[in-house]
Amino acid sequence: MAAIETPVVAVRWCGDAVRALDQTRLPDEVVELELRCADDVAAAIRRLSIRGAPLIGVAAAYGVALELARDPDGLERACETLTAARPTAVNLAWAVARVRAAAQDGGAAGALAEARAIEASETAASAAMGRHGAQLLADTGVRRVLTHCNTGALAAPGRGTALAAIAELGGLELVFVCETRPLLQGARLTTWELARLGIAHELIVDGAAAGLIAGDEVDAVVVGCDRVAANGDVANKVGTYAHALAAAAGSIPFVVVGPCSTIDLDCPTGASITIEQRDGDEVRSAAGAPTAPPGTPVRNPAFDITPAALVTALVTERGVASPVHAEAVRALLG
Amino acid sequence: MAAIETPVVAVRWCGDAVRALDQTRLPDEVVELELRCADDVAAAIRRLSIRGAPLIGVAAAYGVALELARDPDGLERACETLTAARPTAVNLAWAVARVRAAAQDGGAAGALAEARAIEASETAASAAMGRHGAQLLADTGVRRVLTHCNTGALAAPGRGTALAAIAELGGLELVFVCETRPLLQGARLTTWELARLGIAHELIVDGAAAGLIAGDEVDAVVVGCDRVAANGDVANKVGTYAHALAAAAGSIPFVVVGPCSTIDLDCPTGASITIEQRDGDEVRSAAGAPTAPPGTPVRNPAFDITPAALVTALVTERGVASPVHAEAVRALLG
Repeated sequence: MAAIETPVVAVRWCGDAVRALDQTRLPDEVVELELRCADDVAAAIRRLSIRGAPLIGVAAAYGVALELARDPDGLERACETLTAARPTAVNLAWAVARVRAAAQDGGAAGALAEARAIEASETAASAAMGRHGAQLLADTGVRRVLTHCNTGALAAPGRGTALAAIAELGGLELVFVCETRPLLQGARLTTWELARLGIAHELIVDGAAAGLIAGDEVDAVVVGCDRVAANGDVANKVGTYAHALAAAAGSIPFVVVGPCSTIDLDCPTGASITIEQRDGDEVRSAAGAPTAPPGTPVRNPAFDITPAALVTALVTERGVASPVHAEAVRALLG
Repeated sequence: MAAIETPVVAVRWCGDAVRALDQTRLPDEVVELELRCADDVAAAIRRLSIRGAPLIGVAAAYGVALELARDPDGLERACETLTAARPTAVNLAWAVARVRAAAQDGGAAGALAEARAIEASETAASAAMGRHGAQLLADTGVRRVLTHCNTGALAAPGRGTALAAIAELGGLELVFVCETRPLLQGARLTTWELARLGIAHELIVDGAAAGLIAGDEVDAVVVGCDRVAANGDVANKVGTYAHALAAAAGSIPFVVVGPCSTIDLDCPTGASITIEQRDGDEVRSAAGAPTAPPGTPVRNPAFDITPAALVTALVTERGVASPVHAEAVRALLG
């Protein structure tokens, strides 16, 4: 079992490799992977050893730098492989494009410098999102939060996105953690992070969220995001949209936290965001155990779209958009 | 492996025992339990070897008859144990009260006759619900249905409730089956029944339902119910309410199918229905595999409440209430 720092460092540059906590093995085992080329990094992203929109951006940026140090002609292939690893989070394509441009001017050294700059800016963004998000929650008197998937130090450099706001606020009465089927990032990762942070929490199945909200047990839903369209529609882990509907029905805030790197002005609305369809075996099993008759047909979208009208506030490192619409999103970037 | 009939007979009276398919072991193993006293039946209901609101009513009725054949003085204790086995489905208390009254007049023979009468009327109700439900779906041109939990021959005598309507309609393009965490009745049982019936289906995680509805992939949501309040509020397996919100947002029908024995005029609204809270280990694991750090605190409500205003139609053996409100519910019983 590897030693582990607090806060967790999920991905780090080590000169000749990227070291990454293998998130598929948490919480049972704390194991670091050593990734030595772009293909290694892309494979780790595909199998969700590295996950979380901001974190896969940083990892992919270092992946390009790694590849260039091995093979000065490997730029295009590395960029292509890494960009194709997962389709929904825009941070991946954004980070790869930035490092690619830097490499064209400055070679391997330029690529590495750009990857480091991305990591530094995303880390600073995490701290700022934590502050803005905590302020928003404090201002609305939130004591009991519900969250989905994992948005902490395992999902982004620094303390994360939605979980950074929750951690920064401190003193919450309770955080309801949705287990987040099929890959259980809430059950496996968010509970593990909240326990390390000493924050009171209760694990629930995803389907229990709406009833708890209707039963006045939740003051706000706080989640991250994988891509935000120009009009404020939000792509996030599958299951998020139902929580947004429940929050609206229960008249509680539905708060989305993510860095500006997650905003994609090239997508006019959520309808133009590609939703990753993943392997059916993820649904035919849970934590490795079969759950359904072998060969059962499966539909397994990894994300869903929450319309901007259901998002009470979008918290970024540059401030908060509320209500969320095209102008407010543009204002954040301007 | 026991031989298995088509349609499945989930619970049957065998003269000196109740034989029941052990639904906790499906689909991996087809095993029948032999239950010889009220305690056996109550234990099988508690651990969900026997489940589904109408089916636990029938099983409990036979449980009283079994006990009286063993011990003529066992009536009160048997009724108490069986009624307390699970709190949410009203059919359980209703069936036990009926058999208790019959036993007071007619002893063991009266109890058995009443249990048989309950089974016969619930079987006939299932057939009638299937017809009414199929007609409703046909009238609205439904081709693709989404369902939650298990509502087939494993949940009620005959062909079931919501799944009876789906089977009776026939020719559906696709049935989306929500896996139904935590105990995976959809993944384990509904897929198994639909495969036996030759009905096209795809398994999804519960959190994927809302996005599929928003994406125009579903024409109607069709579910069962564990208790219907006098005003038409519906208690059903946890996760149902979120599907109802998604159906309303997507302007598709949300149809509830259940026998009149599920209607409880003593509950004015859903707020007075007791929601069973089950053991946290159900959420800390899936299909026997641990999913979360040991000792993680859990909230595990087994049901939630869908307000009547979100229910497009309530299908019973006596016909269809639509829209659903107190008068329409009373009219069904009148």
